[in-house]
Amino acid sequence: MGRIGSLTSRAGAHLALSFLALSAVGVRADPLPSWNQGPARQAIVAFVEAVTKPGGPDFVPPAERIAVFDNDGTLWSEQPMYVQLAFALDRVKALAPQHPEWREREPFASALRGDPAGVAATGEHGLLELLMETHAGNTSEEFARIVEDWLASATHPKLGRPYTACVYQPMLELLAYLRESGFKTFIVSGGGIEFMRPFTERVYGVPPEQVIGSSIQTRYELRDGRPVIVRLPAVDFVDDEAGKPVGIHKFIGRRPLAAFGNSDGDFEMLEWTTSGPGRRLAVLLHHDDAEREVAYDRKSVIGKLDRGLDEAPGRGWSLVSMKRDWKSVFPSR
Amino acid sequence: MGRIGSLTSRAGAHLALSFLALSAVGVRADPLPSWNQGPARQAIVAFVEAVTKPGGPDFVPPAERIAVFDNDGTLWSEQPMYVQLAFALDRVKALAPQHPEWREREPFASALRGDPAGVAATGEHGLLELLMETHAGNTSEEFARIVEDWLASATHPKLGRPYTACVYQPMLELLAYLRESGFKTFIVSGGGIEFMRPFTERVYGVPPEQVIGSSIQTRYELRDGRPVIVRLPAVDFVDDEAGKPVGIHKFIGRRPLAAFGNSDGDFEMLEWTTSGPGRRLAVLLHHDDAEREVAYDRKSVIGKLDRGLDEAPGRGWSLVSMKRDWKSVFPSR
Repeated sequence: MGRIGSLTSRAGAHLALSFLALSAVGVRADPLPSWNQGPARQAIVAFVEAVTKPGGPDFVPPAERIAVFDNDGTLWSEQPMYVQLAFALDRVKALAPQHPEWREREPFASALRGDPAGVAATGEHGLLELLMETHAGNTSEEFARIVEDWLASATHPKLGRPYTACVYQPMLELLAYLRESGFKTFIVSGGGIEFMRPFTERVYGVPPEQVIGSSIQTRYELRDGRPVIVRLPAVDFVDDEAGKPVGIHKFIGRRPLAAFGNSDGDFEMLEWTTSGPGRRLAVLLHHDDAEREVAYDRKSVIGKLDRGLDEAPGRGWSLVSMKRDWKSVFPSR
Repeated sequence: MGRIGSLTSRAGAHLALSFLALSAVGVRADPLPSWNQGPARQAIVAFVEAVTKPGGPDFVPPAERIAVFDNDGTLWSEQPMYVQLAFALDRVKALAPQHPEWREREPFASALRGDPAGVAATGEHGLLELLMETHAGNTSEEFARIVEDWLASATHPKLGRPYTACVYQPMLELLAYLRESGFKTFIVSGGGIEFMRPFTERVYGVPPEQVIGSSIQTRYELRDGRPVIVRLPAVDFVDDEAGKPVGIHKFIGRRPLAAFGNSDGDFEMLEWTTSGPGRRLAVLLHHDDAEREVAYDRKSVIGKLDRGLDEAPGRGWSLVSMKRDWKSVFPSR
């Protein structure tokens, strides 16, 4: 390419790029179309603009832009029961033919009768037994396939749609908005890490290596000369309450800039996030929309939000009202 | 901008971008300047070109391009002793004034006499005690600062340079080459995760959330109302041998495409990596360069490479000879 041609095209490229940049700023579509104007949306946008503004007093380099999201009740519906519990109850039914003794043994008998209250009545010990029997024994690859198959066929008992369509549209937009703003988005959930990883990339755009959750122990072994990871019936890590900052520290190794939750199980995660230096963001989703989803907080067994409601204002944490702040709740089908 | 101006600049931009693309392909600098031509370099480059070629039979989407690297002996020197052990011995000296009883108690007495062999003679139990006493008790932030301060002042006993300058120049190039080719690079080390994270981003370009290692347990608590992560004197996870695929599965949740190690402690990691479907790469660095570093393999206490040497050819794993394959070993100062 000759000198003049090269100069011309360089000038042209410059003009074209300026034009593209202008249109990117000027006519950029609203990144949060399902969020009403209000203090919650305002707090989120003001935070993102502050930490991404080059040269600004709150600027944070992209490598340190870590945002963590609880899953159950924050990214998808957790009522009337955790999705993973629905999965476990269905697994009991699927495995029952190999376990005739379950018809007489709790919590399996209640699960087989379709009686979640009876299962719950067996307490923590019963629930743990249920989880171990339905979640261990397979290889990691077999378990991922079981989860995928179940998610492809099961539907939410009230919403009547696949569980992966019971995710919150405004939160999908928020995840994408943060990623476009240079954030790495992580899930930090009390739910099982291997229960989430099969769908988080497709549904939330969060790759498996950015999913933190509760786990059972695993062992590497050779089966017929082929290496497998076997899932063992023993708890490895409980990623809830004070376990969340521990999990964040273990998996990420730095303190998040922003944290999103919906229950007191997320309290320590938000506390840890906002106790770091510089500008931080903590958001609690308040389920106050009986019409479009479920209204629950202080008295709920699942997703109890009590201390968080009391302390959020004093700590500068934002409360999102599902009812007032969200134009729509679930993705249109 | 008028229609004609816009068209002109668009055409100009197109030409300019084509030109840039051509120069990127045509005159791109060698990404591995410290690697001699030879089968090891050839295997690496052929693998990268195959999995990144759009439409090719071995193409892998960027999200699945995971490469894992052992640290000790693979990315930096592990002789005459693991860097972390040198750190622990120095910590014993620093903490000795608060522990007068150590002068009579092994393995501390040997450590204080500057007798690593005496420390080693106390066996696994002694080493574990040494690690716990020197690595636990602080908060995570205090420990990170202690590591940073030590790395800033300590020097390698034989090479006479800071430990972070005892990294292998050809491996730094390889890490960068893989990242430029769309790979996410992870460290998967038997060393302590919190010992590595303070320097991996600066030295290797690997952010803390992509570092997997052995760990001790931690606890979240409030100290004077301020949340901290406290390091406890109890083993959480040992990321070595069969622990490496377990750690990879726990932290990453998908099987790597490429794995790099140097000892039999990396065997299972390479085995797990190469047993996945599609094209894979496994590389073992053979320390055969007594002149520029150290020559050791089958009989070495640290970084023993025996089974790997025997089985690499049959398994299609590449052996890198430090002596023949590397033009230089350490970064020039």
